[in-house]
Amino acid sequence: MKPSIPKGTRDFGPREMMKRRFIFENIQKVFVKYGFMPLETPSMENLSTLMGKYGEEGDKLLFKVLNSGDFLNALTPEIIEKGSNAAATKISEKGLRYDLTVPFARYVVQHQSEITFPFKRYQIQPVWRADRPQKGRYREFYQCDVDVVGSKSLINELELIQIVSEVFKVLNINITLKLNNRKILFGIAETMGHLDKMVDITVAIDKLDKIGLDAVKEELRTKEIGDEAIAILEPILVLEGTNSEKLDKISTIISSSEVGMLGVKEVSTILEFVSDLNVDIDLELDLSLARGLNYYTGAIFEVKAKDYAIGSICGGGRYDDLTGIFGLKDVSGVGISFGADRIYDVMLNMDLFPKETEITTQVMFINFGGESEKCALKLLSGLRADGIISEIYPDPVKMKKQMEYANRRFIPYVVIIGDTEIENQIASVKDMNSGEQWSVKFEVLNSIF
Amino acid sequence: MKPSIPKGTRDFGPREMMKRRFIFENIQKVFVKYGFMPLETPSMENLSTLMGKYGEEGDKLLFKVLNSGDFLNALTPEIIEKGSNAAATKISEKGLRYDLTVPFARYVVQHQSEITFPFKRYQIQPVWRADRPQKGRYREFYQCDVDVVGSKSLINELELIQIVSEVFKVLNINITLKLNNRKILFGIAETMGHLDKMVDITVAIDKLDKIGLDAVKEELRTKEIGDEAIAILEPILVLEGTNSEKLDKISTIISSSEVGMLGVKEVSTILEFVSDLNVDIDLELDLSLARGLNYYTGAIFEVKAKDYAIGSICGGGRYDDLTGIFGLKDVSGVGISFGADRIYDVMLNMDLFPKETEITTQVMFINFGGESEKCALKLLSGLRADGIISEIYPDPVKMKKQMEYANRRFIPYVVIIGDTEIENQIASVKDMNSGEQWSVKFEVLNSIF
Repeated sequence: MKPSIPKGTRDFGPREMMKRRFIFENIQKVFVKYGFMPLETPSMENLSTLMGKYGEEGDKLLFKVLNSGDFLNALTPEIIEKGSNAAATKISEKGLRYDLTVPFARYVVQHQSEITFPFKRYQIQPVWRADRPQKGRYREFYQCDVDVVGSKSLINELELIQIVSEVFKVLNINITLKLNNRKILFGIAETMGHLDKMVDITVAIDKLDKIGLDAVKEELRTKEIGDEAIAILEPILVLEGTNSEKLDKISTIISSSEVGMLGVKEVSTILEFVSDLNVDIDLELDLSLARGLNYYTGAIFEVKAKDYAIGSICGGGRYDDLTGIFGLKDVSGVGISFGADRIYDVMLNMDLFPKETEITTQVMFINFGGESEKCALKLLSGLRADGIISEIYPDPVKMKKQMEYANRRFIPYVVIIGDTEIENQIASVKDMNSGEQWSVKFEVLNSIF
Repeated sequence: MKPSIPKGTRDFGPREMMKRRFIFENIQKVFVKYGFMPLETPSMENLSTLMGKYGEEGDKLLFKVLNSGDFLNALTPEIIEKGSNAAATKISEKGLRYDLTVPFARYVVQHQSEITFPFKRYQIQPVWRADRPQKGRYREFYQCDVDVVGSKSLINELELIQIVSEVFKVLNINITLKLNNRKILFGIAETMGHLDKMVDITVAIDKLDKIGLDAVKEELRTKEIGDEAIAILEPILVLEGTNSEKLDKISTIISSSEVGMLGVKEVSTILEFVSDLNVDIDLELDLSLARGLNYYTGAIFEVKAKDYAIGSICGGGRYDDLTGIFGLKDVSGVGISFGADRIYDVMLNMDLFPKETEITTQVMFINFGGESEKCALKLLSGLRADGIISEIYPDPVKMKKQMEYANRRFIPYVVIIGDTEIENQIASVKDMNSGEQWSVKFEVLNSIF
């Protein structure tokens, strides 16, 4: 019976790895260019760090690691009586990382005395969720997060927008960046006279795209929001026009909300930055964007691919109290997370990976054994000394088999050294794409690759 | 109370990350140059894949992941009766990767029909062991493995030696590579008339360095190996001289062992390759090297740092039947593993990390707010467009605080743009190392970095 791997997990063979690396390396290069620094946290965190941070559903989706040694001692009849959830915390004190945000907040609090604020960090690591596996949803997947904590400046929002623009330009994906602001959502709820129902309102309008206006209104009514309040909201939901037209309109509607107007001011400053610097991005103010996450307090971002239907491929926002859960108050931060797996899917299905991601080895020497092998090994060492990615087929098997290997590995050049070649100190080089073959003096072999 | 992380695990902050990355990137670059391709396997494997592969002790050191849902159902009184070890396998079916070798063997067997053999792969990923944490031993640490499977050619051994030479040269660590061959060890045991005690013999002589000759002999006697047999072994253990002198001597002693002489032949071919190609390495034939691993069948490698006392920092060998445990016979392979954590310790303690690993951002703009900020943001965008790693302090706080930030981040250049500078379109650039400051026209600012 063939061995297998746990459901929802994946092996990444060389071809997938080279494509995935193209994504990670390009994202990372942009992060670095903007002054962000790398961080890695352990795969396992104490369960006490993770539990209660992702809601009740999240707690269930945490992978818990069994304590070493005699864990059964902890399973008293009283504990067993309470059921699996309660028992789990008795026999496991560690869990696998569920996202990069909570470990980051934990890191900032734990290392606050060593960190130079504002702290610009990026983190590219796998996370684990015991979700039901399905197409495009995995139990182990990578997140690429970039955050600044310890600064309230809107320049940070600007830089994240610039990063989004650069990343997707280099990945060749056409995107729309949707922007909103939590304070505007607050202002809307306040103007409707329903600050108490802010969550209900944002949850409902977040669904606008999916369920349409009438259904949103219906949902609001079931939450006991009156027609008068809905009448204030409706023109906001159907708002069309340019970003500044939308901004003008919303500021008229929510003008009496101080917080709301602060949100308008923030958005307008960000838009001004983006326009002043000619940031090349399709940025759309979307007043229905809420992203469900209650910890956002300012800007909210979401990125969609224009030419391929898939959920958001990047998103984030500003949070004013993420480290508060670990006892450190007043550390405002803003960040975004790139969804590497979805980006991979978009690029694969739209054929956006450059050809280079298929090639590693540039040159392969055919192995005929004996003197030919010795000669090839010397030339090979010379190529490698010049940094040329190259190899020799290790066994002197039939040439056909060696050529097949080169073909399957997409190796563009094959070097053949037979007796005649040794005698004349000339290598036969075959271009595997064109089929052309030519002779090259040993002494200038390096220069042709 | 400050949050913490599980014992034996580590956070890698920006400074450690930059040093670690220097190691990983350089190792990876060499692997790639030799035609090896990347592979990543899931962090979790089925426990059935892992159990029984690392001995009884290893099974205990596996981190087991608790099954989701109502795991308590599986804990019947009969199971509980059998104790924690038996119970663990009932409530957890997945475990964290213990090394990269077994997952690699599992991958090769599972994907045998897609793989182009010989398969040259490298893998750089963390592994987890529930060892008792102590200085230099962690519960989560990285391994960097490079292997070829599907080829018996000794060119593969040669390439691993070349890789070792190149990696440690670029890391600036002086090393000795010790080489032995399992077939020679077999030949020794055979010549001693104790093939049945091959494991006892290799375990004993592997300790020669640590416990000395007399203690090795004593240990052999307790294993009921007679003085006559020990008399055959002793001259081998005290063998001195050049590699070829040692090889001559051992081939006289074990000349009647066919397998042993095959080992001598293998070593001598490898030494010839290394000498023919002038591989720059201190290679020492060490006939007492056994590395305790029973799956080695040919070459055995071990690397020690010359100038720093720490265990081996790299090791490996040839194995003829690693995939056999998963049902695929006759796939010979050879590989080595670099111990990133020990290499890090050596480099840190010997101050071998280049200065560049401390610098990321090259240029920082001071933020005075208002027009100065606007102007700085434009210049900054220009720098980044040219690929220069640069940033602006996001908030217009006191200059002293901004300079402190630049200092702590080891940012070499700070750009100051005040009213006079804007008027004259000239930036003041401060060299943070020398303290020097000079004026640069906006239009040529990029060119000085």
